[in-house]
Amino acid sequence: MCEANAYLLKEDGVEELVFENVDRVLPREDGILMEDIFGKKKILRARIKEMALVDHKIFLEAI
Amino acid sequence: MCEANAYLLKEDGVEELVFENVDRVLPREDGILMEDIFGKKKILRARIKEMALVDHKIFLEAI
Repeated sequence: MCEANAYLLKEDGVEELVFENVDRVLPREDGILMEDIFGKKKILRARIKEMALVDHKIFLEAI
Repeated sequence: MCEANAYLLKEDGVEELVFENVDRVLPREDGILMEDIFGKKKILRARIKEMALVDHKIFLEAI
């Protein structure tokens, strides 16, 4: 399976794991909606900074 | 490998394949930078509408 883990990049450079097993990612005006492979959803006030699909990583930054 | 294919959503509903084997996705002010698993890069004046990782699909819309 090709789900990914989502990390929020903090100002101090730390990558905080905020959501695992992400299947769907939908950017919105006010943030980002993610849905994991089990159908659980999470909305964060963040935007995509980078996605590294082969590494299964989504990097987000707060907005 | 968990690369994905990128599709541009046209106004008529057609999904046009624009880039294959995408590994990295980096949203920018003026568009989106994608890099495939071979290191080839492509910049499009588009934004992410939806990513479906398990289906290996990135849906873009023109900006």
